[in-house]
Amino acid sequence: MSSQAAHPTLLIPGPIEFDDAVLQSMGHYRQLLPVLVYSESHVGPGFVATFGDTLSKLRKLFQTTDPASQPFVINGSGTLGWDLVAANLVEPGENVLVLSSGYFGDAFADCFSAYGAKVTKITGAVGSRPQPDEIEKALKEKKYKVISATHVDTSTGVLFDLKSLTAIVKRVSPETLIIADGVCSVACEEIDFDAWGLDVVITASQKAIGCPTGLHISMFSGRAIEVVKTRKTEPAVYFASIKRWLPIMQNYEAKKPSYFSTPSPQLIRALNTAVSQVLDRPLSERFQRHIEASDKVKKTVADLGLKVVASKPEDQAHAMTAIYLPDSVSPPDILPKLLNKGIIFAGGLHKDIGSKYIRFGHMGPSVMDPKRRDVDNALDALKGALAECGYKA
Amino acid sequence: MSSQAAHPTLLIPGPIEFDDAVLQSMGHYRQLLPVLVYSESHVGPGFVATFGDTLSKLRKLFQTTDPASQPFVINGSGTLGWDLVAANLVEPGENVLVLSSGYFGDAFADCFSAYGAKVTKITGAVGSRPQPDEIEKALKEKKYKVISATHVDTSTGVLFDLKSLTAIVKRVSPETLIIADGVCSVACEEIDFDAWGLDVVITASQKAIGCPTGLHISMFSGRAIEVVKTRKTEPAVYFASIKRWLPIMQNYEAKKPSYFSTPSPQLIRALNTAVSQVLDRPLSERFQRHIEASDKVKKTVADLGLKVVASKPEDQAHAMTAIYLPDSVSPPDILPKLLNKGIIFAGGLHKDIGSKYIRFGHMGPSVMDPKRRDVDNALDALKGALAECGYKA
Repeated sequence: MSSQAAHPTLLIPGPIEFDDAVLQSMGHYRQLLPVLVYSESHVGPGFVATFGDTLSKLRKLFQTTDPASQPFVINGSGTLGWDLVAANLVEPGENVLVLSSGYFGDAFADCFSAYGAKVTKITGAVGSRPQPDEIEKALKEKKYKVISATHVDTSTGVLFDLKSLTAIVKRVSPETLIIADGVCSVACEEIDFDAWGLDVVITASQKAIGCPTGLHISMFSGRAIEVVKTRKTEPAVYFASIKRWLPIMQNYEAKKPSYFSTPSPQLIRALNTAVSQVLDRPLSERFQRHIEASDKVKKTVADLGLKVVASKPEDQAHAMTAIYLPDSVSPPDILPKLLNKGIIFAGGLHKDIGSKYIRFGHMGPSVMDPKRRDVDNALDALKGALAECGYKA
Repeated sequence: MSSQAAHPTLLIPGPIEFDDAVLQSMGHYRQLLPVLVYSESHVGPGFVATFGDTLSKLRKLFQTTDPASQPFVINGSGTLGWDLVAANLVEPGENVLVLSSGYFGDAFADCFSAYGAKVTKITGAVGSRPQPDEIEKALKEKKYKVISATHVDTSTGVLFDLKSLTAIVKRVSPETLIIADGVCSVACEEIDFDAWGLDVVITASQKAIGCPTGLHISMFSGRAIEVVKTRKTEPAVYFASIKRWLPIMQNYEAKKPSYFSTPSPQLIRALNTAVSQVLDRPLSERFQRHIEASDKVKKTVADLGLKVVASKPEDQAHAMTAIYLPDSVSPPDILPKLLNKGIIFAGGLHKDIGSKYIRFGHMGPSVMDPKRRDVDNALDALKGALAECGYKA
């Protein structure tokens, strides 16, 4: 990244920094002519092969070898994933249990409600997550069609223990479909789709995968697909219809052109490059590197006398950190000072504490690329900016 | 386009050829460093200003000066626009009149049905469009909440006379909202949003606007927005909710960051460049240039002894031509021969005549860029490929 100095480093919890090769992939002919980039057909053999290969690679990223599992890549965003789940897996009037640890859990609940689901929501205290005993109690009280958890809530940096959750659900209510919002966790936190028995994991292109924004990405289990196929009522959606997208994804993965709605060759080529880069190294190593970066960030925050929004270490995400500011410092004070030092953090995004904290995303190339010093630079900038605000640790 | 020879020319009816500057815009820092391209925040001031400017420019492209009109740019595609219309403007059980001249009109009807509308569809004979007397009769028989027409059906190249339609609706059923699917017409066919009294025009980034695929683009009238705001039931959608996107679009256009679902800085920068290029010249000149290119294509087709799918000249789109092949030639025969000559056309996409015709898209840079000879090259390639198939005019 020889020219990093030419732009401030984007260290918000998504979109994130890109590897040059990812963005260059958006120009199909870059390998011949680095600057000039061209168009291609969404049903031409070159693109069809790339799209199919991308879908196959996503199976590896989500750690599923069950051929019944089904990846989806659709123009959109993480948000669209909520619609895919709420519109296709739940029929109006059915019960849904939403586990929320912040803004995004609450919004997922709103999405379920919009589609007519009967939503029960368990909300963790600010900086915490719903507890196992509450979840087990709720599952025993009522039959739920689906349970959803936000794996990492980008508003708070709270990590949900997805593996333990799946164990509880399998024991107490095995027929309940388990949905994970992995927007801020796929490609940076361990997700073992088959072994944990997940039914849907949704994510987006611009987080730890490291591709530009614009794509919704998800993995559905064979069981989830069966539920879509056998539901009593037709889903009242069109663009977000799993039934309509299913044959398209299956055809592309079989390297056959297929049409429902035009996919983006540019974004999907970038996604292919990004996912290929992720899979270049063992996933376990990638998760470990994010843990190490996170440990360094959390230690520095503690050394500065500051607190992380996620109060317990076991609830702390590894690819982002929400940091409470000192009482004397506000986000509008410190964010411009960080920018002056070439670092972009995000402000708060939680209704109760929004003005009291900032968010630092440390994921993807900023953690994995050995030529970058993004995390160290950001921590130095944070120290300097706090000092400029008059704060002494 | 000095390096055009490095890749075949994409002359399908979308996605189309890009101007270099459009694709280079997907790298924010291209102006400093042509090859290296970087990330930026979706709520940073640079991107917010660009998104806001893009929305304002879209008002000019759709020819609306009414401040109540509202542009929307959302990650997605043309298809998503059908959902925006069907989910937000029509309540379940309300009547919709769909005018179809091919695959896309039929699919729009399917989308309305998915959301619970009562759909009446008038379908033109293959290569034709619903006629004014049929439309007027239907409008007098029943009260319709909305009427939709596919301005150009990409499957057949049939152009709908939108201006005359609006006159009929205003006279016979003025309260009916008028929806135009402009996926294959915005930025290449005359659309006068205010003067014609349109309520919604939907389109996508990858057609005549000349931006990569991945964005849904639409314009809603103030009257349409009022219908969304005053409907009796809440729309049962989330990602496709106009109410949720409305404040976001208004904030971005006012240069204020706002969040519902992450927009794509890369695609929206490309869109800004593409729309700016479109607006560099008077729209009337642009439409005229597309008419001239179309006339040349249609004349060559006639000189070759072949027929256009749109049978009457007044029903022929100006930015694409669906061409019936000679009986002795099939799409799988001729498309590879065209590709050998560096030209990509599309196959047929109509349930009754799919194997009998090919589609030639002549829009955007291929028509407007004086340095390109795309249309002439394509016509030469067509003549040569037909000869190679043993066809003599």
